[in-house]
Amino acid sequence: MEINKELLLIGQKAKNASRRLSFSGTQAKNKALTAMAGALKERQEEILRANALDVQAAEEKGLRKSLVNRLRLTKETIQEMSRSLEEVVSLPDPVGGGEFWTRPNGLRIQKTRVPLGVVAMIYEARPNVTVDAAALCIKSGNACILRGGSEAIESNKVLAKVIAEAAEENGLPEGSIQLVGMTDREYALQLMKMNKYIDVIIPRGGAGLIQTVIENSTIPVIETGTGVCHAFVDKDADFAKAVSIVFNAKTQKPGVCNALETLLVHQDVAGEYLPLIGKKFQDFGVEIRGCEKVLRVLEYATQAEAEDWGTEYLDLIISVKVVKDLDEALDHIYMYSTKHSETIITENYTAAQRFLHEIDAAAVYVNASTRFTDGGRFGFGAEIGISTQKLHSRGPMALPELTTIKYIIYGDGQIVT
Amino acid sequence: MEINKELLLIGQKAKNASRRLSFSGTQAKNKALTAMAGALKERQEEILRANALDVQAAEEKGLRKSLVNRLRLTKETIQEMSRSLEEVVSLPDPVGGGEFWTRPNGLRIQKTRVPLGVVAMIYEARPNVTVDAAALCIKSGNACILRGGSEAIESNKVLAKVIAEAAEENGLPEGSIQLVGMTDREYALQLMKMNKYIDVIIPRGGAGLIQTVIENSTIPVIETGTGVCHAFVDKDADFAKAVSIVFNAKTQKPGVCNALETLLVHQDVAGEYLPLIGKKFQDFGVEIRGCEKVLRVLEYATQAEAEDWGTEYLDLIISVKVVKDLDEALDHIYMYSTKHSETIITENYTAAQRFLHEIDAAAVYVNASTRFTDGGRFGFGAEIGISTQKLHSRGPMALPELTTIKYIIYGDGQIVT
Repeated sequence: MEINKELLLIGQKAKNASRRLSFSGTQAKNKALTAMAGALKERQEEILRANALDVQAAEEKGLRKSLVNRLRLTKETIQEMSRSLEEVVSLPDPVGGGEFWTRPNGLRIQKTRVPLGVVAMIYEARPNVTVDAAALCIKSGNACILRGGSEAIESNKVLAKVIAEAAEENGLPEGSIQLVGMTDREYALQLMKMNKYIDVIIPRGGAGLIQTVIENSTIPVIETGTGVCHAFVDKDADFAKAVSIVFNAKTQKPGVCNALETLLVHQDVAGEYLPLIGKKFQDFGVEIRGCEKVLRVLEYATQAEAEDWGTEYLDLIISVKVVKDLDEALDHIYMYSTKHSETIITENYTAAQRFLHEIDAAAVYVNASTRFTDGGRFGFGAEIGISTQKLHSRGPMALPELTTIKYIIYGDGQIVT
Repeated sequence: MEINKELLLIGQKAKNASRRLSFSGTQAKNKALTAMAGALKERQEEILRANALDVQAAEEKGLRKSLVNRLRLTKETIQEMSRSLEEVVSLPDPVGGGEFWTRPNGLRIQKTRVPLGVVAMIYEARPNVTVDAAALCIKSGNACILRGGSEAIESNKVLAKVIAEAAEENGLPEGSIQLVGMTDREYALQLMKMNKYIDVIIPRGGAGLIQTVIENSTIPVIETGTGVCHAFVDKDADFAKAVSIVFNAKTQKPGVCNALETLLVHQDVAGEYLPLIGKKFQDFGVEIRGCEKVLRVLEYATQAEAEDWGTEYLDLIISVKVVKDLDEALDHIYMYSTKHSETIITENYTAAQRFLHEIDAAAVYVNASTRFTDGGRFGFGAEIGISTQKLHSRGPMALPELTTIKYIIYGDGQIVT
């Protein structure tokens, strides 16, 4: 595949920048991040003007209102971005620490953390990702190449310009933060082949985007996001917890990857529990797609089709199935889980332990909402995405996940015999 | 791409096995590994008969003698494989430990290590990889799919059969260890698309094999092996160390990835140092391909071509270049390094520190041979390969690198507000 010259130049500049960034100290990086936070506030009019163009174009194209809202920036959201940059300043630098040991032959080996190098992010609508991703990359010593969606292109261009200028004026190398201004799919595909310049690619967005990156990238990928999350209400569930947790996981923010999509209910308690949660869902306008046993209890539920069980609705819809026992619940989750977040509601110790250890997912819960799977809520202070793959990192990714290992070995003449 | 039915079945069986293996305890895994070690010794005649077929076929095909030797098994090498299985028994189980913390809302979060799931290895000639890779996968709770080269197919089939039978007879699930018996390239390509069943794919072999996997795999890849390793002899080098280390790194085992391929010499000491190392190389039959400045000092050197600087010879050949200073050495390594192992020979503190921190490689050395980059020599007790990528793992990979993270969260009704 021939790669566009402008893209190649972006790659080369990023690679060069990463070489210097990799040994920039914490103070230098924090100075730049602080300046970036200040620049966002100072240049907010410029940002809002560009954003208005995106919002107008989206409205003219008849984009769904929820998407238009995700696109819209205000003085408050810009303040929020600026504050989140300041928070990144206050986080510990993930680079430079580690462990060390001495070998019998006297070699002293340090296993230390270093930046990945060049990180490319391919993402969709929300312009704040431009700022968040750049900040986390800079703090961890990585150069970043940002490729946002076409809907937010004007906002992204200005945001990237504002923070890149502030970073460079404050001592970071040119090319530390770059946006790919070309939003054609073709250029995204070319970007995915630039393994000579890019060390890691992180797609953030819908299942289609993520699949495209997995299939086309020659750069190592960190897969993020798709979440067909399950809750299993066991026969020994506390109903108050089961209603509150299931309702929260489904409705508190249905458009995100850690929201609940499927509810499994033990047959012994289905007759009693389903009407309780069903009523709450009905009142809130949640559509229930159930198996036949659910339909017998909830007359307002509709019949679930086979494809419902693997669907991430990201909407006020839930699939509900009555299961014979814990084993059937485990089998169902094994079959349909995207290995993101799963929860069991039970007071039974052994059922809880089996669920925790037999389910293969980034996060498994007992008696808590799946919505907690998040870098901030786990206490990491930041999040660049939620990995649903097993390599490198799994679950919420923060600053340490943007680094890799380097072995530094001090010798005094050792040779291998 | 349509996938062969037999391959799909292998994938499904591995996936099913991995589900049970993931929560097999250390005792159960060690029992199986011990039985595998015993079976190799008991069934050595069967193994030797199969190996003789491979050796004969290789000789008839006129394979290079060094390759035929890599293929050949003896009673001693089978004993050695058996002993290395026993060593894996004695290594600590990488699964099940971790850290935990409590959030302000009372959620107790455990970050624990769990197996990757299904690991596929694609490798070339050496049949011992079949046994080593299976042992490390089993100890870390992973099912493995092994796909060796056609040259060793008869040996690999019997080895895999012997250890898989021993494992299953001793309680491990069916499908824990499987060999792909079909050695056509087509099936390897199909295997690389089975991301529904395989969690990680690890190629071990030449640059061509590794490139094919990177370009074709939809499964996350751990890239291993290619090493264009450099030594820089600084102006403040101790010549005795510089001669001993450079000679060792080039000649002790030239066919491996951590062997030296390029020597860079500071111009201030080239006139004095080059004849010392040159003589040793000449006596040992090492071909020297040098830049013009080298040719002026060593009349037996031949002219290096442009492509020499990026070449992994894996042979008794070395490229040698005289550089102006440390900066030129860093720039040269930045350009041609495969980021495996690099060493500086110097008594100068600041030069050593700059080299250690500015070079981007899995392992960087001062005053020691690059040949130390190895799981065993680093003290890990085992090695499944040496990662030259930055994601997941970098440098020698042992048991912990065959695991991933899982978050286990204990709640008592927490919801997100």
